[in-house]
Amino acid sequence: MSKKVYLTRRETFAAAHRLFKPELSDKENYELFGKCSNPNWHGHNYTLEVTVIGEVNPATGFVLDIKKLKQLIHENVISKVDHKNLNIDTEFMNGIIPTSENISIAIWKQLDDKITDGKLYSVKLYETENNYFEYKGE
Amino acid sequence: MSKKVYLTRRETFAAAHRLFKPELSDKENYELFGKCSNPNWHGHNYTLEVTVIGEVNPATGFVLDIKKLKQLIHENVISKVDHKNLNIDTEFMNGIIPTSENISIAIWKQLDDKITDGKLYSVKLYETENNYFEYKGE
Amino acid sequence: MSKKVYLTRRETFAAAHRLFKPELSDKENYELFGKCSNPNWHGHNYTLEVTVIGEVNPATGFVLDIKKLKQLIHENVISKVDHKNLNIDTEFMNGIIPTSENISIAIWKQLDDKITDGKLYSVKLYETENNYFEYKGE
Amino acid sequence: MSKKVYLTRRETFAAAHRLFKPELSDKENYELFGKCSNPNWHGHNYTLEVTVIGEVNPATGFVLDIKKLKQLIHENVISKVDHKNLNIDTEFMNGIIPTSENISIAIWKQLDDKITDGKLYSVKLYETENNYFEYKGE
Amino acid sequence: MSKKVYLTRRETFAAAHRLFKPELSDKENYELFGKCSNPNWHGHNYTLEVTVIGEVNPATGFVLDIKKLKQLIHENVISKVDHKNLNIDTEFMNGIIPTSENISIAIWKQLDDKITDGKLYSVKLYETENNYFEYKGE
Amino acid sequence: MSKKVYLTRRETFAAAHRLFKPELSDKENYELFGKCSNPNWHGHNYTLEVTVIGEVNPATGFVLDIKKLKQLIHENVISKVDHKNLNIDTEFMNGIIPTSENISIAIWKQLDDKITDGKLYSVKLYETENNYFEYKGE
Repeated sequence: MSKKVYLTRRETFAAAHRLFKPELSDKENYELFGKCSNPNWHGHNYTLEVTVIGEVNPATGFVLDIKKLKQLIHENVISKVDHKNLNIDTEFMNGIIPTSENISIAIWKQLDDKITDGKLYSVKLYETENNYFEYKGE
Repeated sequence: MSKKVYLTRRETFAAAHRLFKPELSDKENYELFGKCSNPNWHGHNYTLEVTVIGEVNPATGFVLDIKKLKQLIHENVISKVDHKNLNIDTEFMNGIIPTSENISIAIWKQLDDKITDGKLYSVKLYETENNYFEYKGE
Repeated sequence: MSKKVYLTRRETFAAAHRLFKPELSDKENYELFGKCSNPNWHGHNYTLEVTVIGEVNPATGFVLDIKKLKQLIHENVISKVDHKNLNIDTEFMNGIIPTSENISIAIWKQLDDKITDGKLYSVKLYETENNYFEYKGE
Repeated sequence: MSKKVYLTRRETFAAAHRLFKPELSDKENYELFGKCSNPNWHGHNYTLEVTVIGEVNPATGFVLDIKKLKQLIHENVISKVDHKNLNIDTEFMNGIIPTSENISIAIWKQLDDKITDGKLYSVKLYETENNYFEYKGE
Repeated sequence: MSKKVYLTRRETFAAAHRLFKPELSDKENYELFGKCSNPNWHGHNYTLEVTVIGEVNPATGFVLDIKKLKQLIHENVISKVDHKNLNIDTEFMNGIIPTSENISIAIWKQLDDKITDGKLYSVKLYETENNYFEYKGE
Repeated sequence: MSKKVYLTRRETFAAAHRLFKPELSDKENYELFGKCSNPNWHGHNYTLEVTVIGEVNPATGFVLDIKKLKQLIHENVISKVDHKNLNIDTEFMNGIIPTSENISIAIWKQLDDKITDGKLYSVKLYETENNYFEYKGE
């Protein structure tokens, strides 16, 4: 019998960002992105949930040692976004409008080939307690 | 490459309701619905999560401007249920026993054809912190 | 050395209520109480936190067995408000406008003389996740 | 039209456990399981979410009376794990390393054939606020 | 008998900020403020809880209509900090290092003389889920 | 003008414990402590909130760099209780019944003289989401 379990690690980070297109004026950006286009930036405490699916290893009872997953997320994501400006400081967001949709997809790309026990299943990003976004590689 | 993201908006509302069938006596309703059949009503702070799935628009990085989704939910749902009696005040619940199962399905119907960027994926309703219900149009 | 500890028990209940004065018209009540005056009622999931302060008993390490506090709260409060209409069903709210301010004070009176190990310190009532009220017998 | 709703009940329990293999030394267990292998045990407040999927019964508006689901979970799971040592006291965990992956699968087996209205869909187990695990019978 | 109740309104806002002293170099600011001194800013979802203490008005059962308190907080605080840069955009933070300590005190000053039913008791500011700060005018 | 701010750091730890008196039989311990006396232990995810009160330093806007407080709590408390058995592994709990009342007081003693910027104001310990305890040195 196959035994697949979904394992999720939750992390948080604090970052600044601005939604805008450089080719547009501040006024045009405001029309498109509203208050999220403030030229002086704003920021969020983001909550990130990364889910991996895999067979339970009968020798350990683990899909994957969750401490390893934590470490992977810290090295490949948190260290590059926490207390950063997502438009300026984060290389893997270069040239990408930092909406939560795009951040989720970019985090997926950061992690996908690093996970070798099991398979990346979902990247979920809470921008606020009322708005969250999920990418499943579809 | 296709890039589909699930976007969720969380809202809350406070409402009164009663679970009962008009053709039954209070005693029979109590047998069927327990303390939820109190003829003098009771109520809840409901938490509603509406999820839309869609392609990320490369021009904006949005599936759908979440402020629009918020507005749609307020116009079509929250304005009709918040500080209301779901058995009496809410037209879209007419003739429907207001269990959380039925409320979820009714909210789906209120929203389904209003969402034009992306597609409605799920309506999730928390009745209490311990009980929640989800309808996905299945 | 004296060792006073504050011990808190959290409980929840779901109830209907209406804010209104019987001597006023529906229109006048709406002016005073807004949507909370809906004549067809509305309701909430209330969260109640009851805090007792007392000396730690060296024989047990308890101020008071928290199971006893839970039982006291259930007998004197929860059983009288859960799945009830606070305006109609709850004797200890008779003739009292069921604002959260008044409910907190009424719950204090229900509990104050029942607590014999330690002393009632605070009754805190969350009406929603954004509004809460606390009475300390002052 | 078919109307399938996912209904979830949340419960909590507090338990002690230790991750180890009896055939290994304490040092070897520490290498495999880290601080979770503490021979003197440690423990958690686990949060369990059990999801059932089923057709809404038009006579009641219920998939399943959630009070029944609560009772099933208490009889078959909570009574056997709450304030227990999962390695010693819980018969259904006999001979199983009590990782959250394995506990989720064992809880699924405890519940699967007891649910007769609807079908068990998911067992989700939060070990901490940062780590959770889900089994869907796959 | 006097009946004083503490009433609390919770609001949230998202803002960017940077901890630094203009007379210091980036390196010196880093030594003093760590990663919070990032010259490209970072940000947070702040949660603000404002508590007012006052006598319950026997005519209404209110200390103060909580909708009025909400409005006061929006006009005097939220509109000036939400989706803003606290170092640049917020006049009432001019010349003040935007630590949560200082933001709490500045919010107190914004609100203190606007509250005429009851008295401002506390301003509590959550910078993250792990760090919060409270000012009581002491 | 004096400016005193209360600053709180939240931490979590997972531990096993048992409430019992060695001079009593298992049956007598059960009568006194209920299911918390299980001889095979049980455990919790504890949440700890440590509050310090102090003057805001005008040079930094800090009462105390919260990273220092975090470090103090880790060195003096978390490292000695996380993934431990409070009855066996934690020296500062030697000979003390590990009720949450007693753990709070013992944590206060661990921290009180280590805090040199500001003064320890409160130690708050959540044993479960429904039970919490606070010691203020009274």
